[in-house]
Amino acid sequence: MDTLVEGIDFRTSWRGFDFAALGRRLMTINLSDLAAMGAEPRHALISLCLRRNLPVSSVTALYRGIRAQARRYGFTVAGGDLSEIDGPLVLSATLFGEIRHGRPMSRGGARPGWHLAVTGTVGKAAAGLELLEARRLPRTASERRLIRALLDPVPRLRAGQILRESGIRVAGDISDGVTTEVARIAEASNVGAVIIEAGLPIDRGMRARHGNRKSWQLALGGSEDFELICAAPSSRMTAAASTLFSETGLRLWRVGLITEKREVLRLDDRGRYFRVRRIGYEHFR
Amino acid sequence: MDTLVEGIDFRTSWRGFDFAALGRRLMTINLSDLAAMGAEPRHALISLCLRRNLPVSSVTALYRGIRAQARRYGFTVAGGDLSEIDGPLVLSATLFGEIRHGRPMSRGGARPGWHLAVTGTVGKAAAGLELLEARRLPRTASERRLIRALLDPVPRLRAGQILRESGIRVAGDISDGVTTEVARIAEASNVGAVIIEAGLPIDRGMRARHGNRKSWQLALGGSEDFELICAAPSSRMTAAASTLFSETGLRLWRVGLITEKREVLRLDDRGRYFRVRRIGYEHFR
Repeated sequence: MDTLVEGIDFRTSWRGFDFAALGRRLMTINLSDLAAMGAEPRHALISLCLRRNLPVSSVTALYRGIRAQARRYGFTVAGGDLSEIDGPLVLSATLFGEIRHGRPMSRGGARPGWHLAVTGTVGKAAAGLELLEARRLPRTASERRLIRALLDPVPRLRAGQILRESGIRVAGDISDGVTTEVARIAEASNVGAVIIEAGLPIDRGMRARHGNRKSWQLALGGSEDFELICAAPSSRMTAAASTLFSETGLRLWRVGLITEKREVLRLDDRGRYFRVRRIGYEHFR
Repeated sequence: MDTLVEGIDFRTSWRGFDFAALGRRLMTINLSDLAAMGAEPRHALISLCLRRNLPVSSVTALYRGIRAQARRYGFTVAGGDLSEIDGPLVLSATLFGEIRHGRPMSRGGARPGWHLAVTGTVGKAAAGLELLEARRLPRTASERRLIRALLDPVPRLRAGQILRESGIRVAGDISDGVTTEVARIAEASNVGAVIIEAGLPIDRGMRARHGNRKSWQLALGGSEDFELICAAPSSRMTAAASTLFSETGLRLWRVGLITEKREVLRLDDRGRYFRVRRIGYEHFR
């Protein structure tokens, strides 16, 4: 169950905004949670809070986006709920998935010495957000790619299923940021972790645009990327990476290690450690 | 899946408003949908969009209300989602229920000649809303009862299960109003209906306060009552009513009949018919 709130998660005034992509994104943020468990989507419930003056064409486009994802990823829209709101649009969905054999992947159970890896480049959506909020027209293909990463992300459903079938047990998605998700895995597993900055896969255009330091910052702290992150012993990771690449063309980028001491460290490219999270309590958001 | 939106479904400025009751109401509006199917609640997912400046004590009270319903009606809160909003509070829940034997009740399948009946008085919540919106302090026990009907309704879960076990197949709840729900049943069953005003069970205090005509108007058009309405052959209705009364003390009030012609009529106390809905198309809300 995940929600998009106007003014927080999107603005209709963004250049290139459209309601069909918003509908696709609503489903992607929910599909990504199923992907992180290695599940297949089955049914969706959709709850929309809409303003009275919203054009019917916007609602139609929104549903078109939702339906496109349903067709593409093989689930049905089984019901939902329509409310009026005198304020920001609020779009929420509940997704039901299935795992036929075995158990879902989860954040718990990572052990010291295991590797951490992600399914794709990180920080693009955060860089796209900066462009949109600066109200600049994208000038290059690279800028358009960053903006598209935010507006129209792709859920890693097949990747999640492959990881699970390859025997990986610990995974999450990085939609709230790499640091946050690594901290959650550490928390659920009662361990620590070190994130190796130099290992973070950075989009080439983004690196050219922002340089290493700013790219790493966006990669670690930015959110709204829908890559998966998983933890496993190195040999298992290697085997999973090989299947993943041959079936989807995606790579598994090693970005860190699970450690004993209950803290999340960042290791920068000059070999310095910085503590970015303590493990053992959760902040109120 | 059902949603409460601040400014539309509630105001925190209402006299007597409290967040624990709001949490209970959030669950009730969802439990009522399960009640209308004759299902038992099992799990809930909760999605909250909260303002940054909302006191933590309000959030705590809200959860206390949610938890109270979970204990009372025997379901678990299995997860959910927390978002920030710069605008009205939006509270949404998805409820999962179970039916062990047989099928859920639904709106389809009503046949001409069948009776329509409701599980309790109608219009109280609408009368309570008028009091709250007039910003008047309730002066009598009766006024407090009307307000409580809106702020803290009770889901008819056990009633729904008894109706279903008594062989009733067609039911809904009247949370969107008696007229609307009768029209939905007629629509789903491809029939018509007549609502007999004089049969509508009106709260005694409400009748004293508003008189017959205004009470009927609130009863037919008002919403936010969480009684069930069902359709069945008369003999089956009688049998169900007897079980319902002996197990819960609730009565089944006959409020109308299913008809052949595809329209919903209201029959007033002077014997005049008025068409209140055509059947065969749905308005965009």
